[in-house]
Amino acid sequence: MKNRQIVIAELPGDTLRPEHFRLTEAEAPAPGEGEVQLRVILMSIDAANRSWMRGATYRAAVKTGDTMPTYAICEVVQSKSDTLAVGDIVAAEATWSDYVTLPASKAQKLPKVPQLSHLLSVYGVAGKTAYHGLISIGRPVAGEIVVVSAAAGSVGGYVGQIAKALGCRVVGIAGGPEKCRWVEEELGFDACVDYRAGGLSRALAAACPDGADVYFDNVGGKVLESALNVMNERGRVICCGAVSQYDTDAPSGPRNLPGLIVVKRLRMEGFIVMDHARDDDTCLRALRHWVESGQIKVTEDIVEGLENAPQALIGLLAGDNRGKRMVRVAADQN
Amino acid sequence: MKNRQIVIAELPGDTLRPEHFRLTEAEAPAPGEGEVQLRVILMSIDAANRSWMRGATYRAAVKTGDTMPTYAICEVVQSKSDTLAVGDIVAAEATWSDYVTLPASKAQKLPKVPQLSHLLSVYGVAGKTAYHGLISIGRPVAGEIVVVSAAAGSVGGYVGQIAKALGCRVVGIAGGPEKCRWVEEELGFDACVDYRAGGLSRALAAACPDGADVYFDNVGGKVLESALNVMNERGRVICCGAVSQYDTDAPSGPRNLPGLIVVKRLRMEGFIVMDHARDDDTCLRALRHWVESGQIKVTEDIVEGLENAPQALIGLLAGDNRGKRMVRVAADQN
Repeated sequence: MKNRQIVIAELPGDTLRPEHFRLTEAEAPAPGEGEVQLRVILMSIDAANRSWMRGATYRAAVKTGDTMPTYAICEVVQSKSDTLAVGDIVAAEATWSDYVTLPASKAQKLPKVPQLSHLLSVYGVAGKTAYHGLISIGRPVAGEIVVVSAAAGSVGGYVGQIAKALGCRVVGIAGGPEKCRWVEEELGFDACVDYRAGGLSRALAAACPDGADVYFDNVGGKVLESALNVMNERGRVICCGAVSQYDTDAPSGPRNLPGLIVVKRLRMEGFIVMDHARDDDTCLRALRHWVESGQIKVTEDIVEGLENAPQALIGLLAGDNRGKRMVRVAADQN
Repeated sequence: MKNRQIVIAELPGDTLRPEHFRLTEAEAPAPGEGEVQLRVILMSIDAANRSWMRGATYRAAVKTGDTMPTYAICEVVQSKSDTLAVGDIVAAEATWSDYVTLPASKAQKLPKVPQLSHLLSVYGVAGKTAYHGLISIGRPVAGEIVVVSAAAGSVGGYVGQIAKALGCRVVGIAGGPEKCRWVEEELGFDACVDYRAGGLSRALAAACPDGADVYFDNVGGKVLESALNVMNERGRVICCGAVSQYDTDAPSGPRNLPGLIVVKRLRMEGFIVMDHARDDDTCLRALRHWVESGQIKVTEDIVEGLENAPQALIGLLAGDNRGKRMVRVAADQN
């Protein structure tokens, strides 16, 4: 069985480019005892892919010659395991490939749902990250003001919609006037500020005349700096990612932090979605409620074809996605 | 009655210097109805004095022509109030002066204690800041590793001694080999790293082979950056002040923060000691216990004479103090 794989040809220094990847072909290895062979259906494309190329994070670094790891929805096509059968739909850490072979214990069987892509978007890492970060770290209450960066991105869009469902005023930050309009009109944010238009601090202050109580940070850098300026006393900053910092060799910290965090009594906290797995049932029940009541629109940005995965990631880092980006490698079988 | 006052002659841009102050003399105003006239005995000298000169913080900015405000221990010398009598010892926001006149309601009557200076050091803002920040934000437990910057300073010395009393391993950061030795030998820290010796990140990593669980930040800037590098997962960073940032026009943020706060799931939180006033009784009882049991040494750095207040502040910003700095304006009367 022919198996295409996308391998790291060279680790990027500064900006990630197509030539850092290489498409190879090999035989898909047959499963050994206790193993399964999986057909990759949908791959999650995340800014984290880029940060793994920078060194060890919460997982081992990705190196030259490695096939890019990815969280994926897959179908079991061969099984030498008692626990998984051919045709089962599973989530697993796969790679950018048509097929992967791994121990059955590393694959998590999923319920059959009408749309597999929802398992990567609202009911997947994106929706769960938005929920856990906002609820357990940000703790917003009705009437508070929530600011979220990368508002047109996978996580940011859900953060804002959840905050709206909770009764908050929600201000997004996104790149470009069209994206901002989409965030306001399609996602229902109260306002969305274009960080590419220049004068972000002033624009954000104008969009937040009563300041901000919660800031959900997906980008770091100068956007974080501007957000700190509008925080109210006892504001909470949820540190979810720093996409502006992953694709550069010259990271910058918020220069105003050491002063403002004391004067405003800010709390700033980082988290990883897996840390909150014990609350996933509550999280998924809440997300289902909001999706079914129409308070959350499921936004997905699906790129077709394994061969387009590098460009899907490069584009994501440049902010060209709207909603949760994924790559479809094969058709849903169910 | 002759009243000397130290007035801001000019607001500093970058570094604070003696010529930014001017000594003036005037008559001390007699108290009006409901007012008291106070003799200033001891003035607290704090890095915060400098930050007030930079603009509005948790209090209004200090401007050219203002007499420098100060937290002070004073004696009532004239009273037109029913609540305070001549000879009472009070705490008040005074100014750098021999005498101040203010509404009796703005002065807080203090118990007579054997040593008035203790009311500004261990039982004053320094001790309370150390206790509230460490206990309510840092929440260290026995066996954890606590790092504290400005370890020879007023707050840092108490932070480390409290953490030792709680059963933690304590590593200080201070400027110069003599100060570091004093922190280790006099205050009983397990180690103290000299940030002036260069290579702070490496030296701190060597002093913390098992990382750090709590970092009490008094300085911000590059020291904060080095401390973030050694933090363990779920580490807590207590943001108490950023003395390195007050006396400069080019503040710098920790460049490694946006990445590390997520990967390490750090919590970083600022506070102001007044916010915790409702827990002051518990705090003072604990501090008294540790002082009486010999687990906390009361370190004080008293500069004699009102006219020396500017140099006392300038020197504090350069780190020339050991323990809580104050200026004695008049002798204790009790």
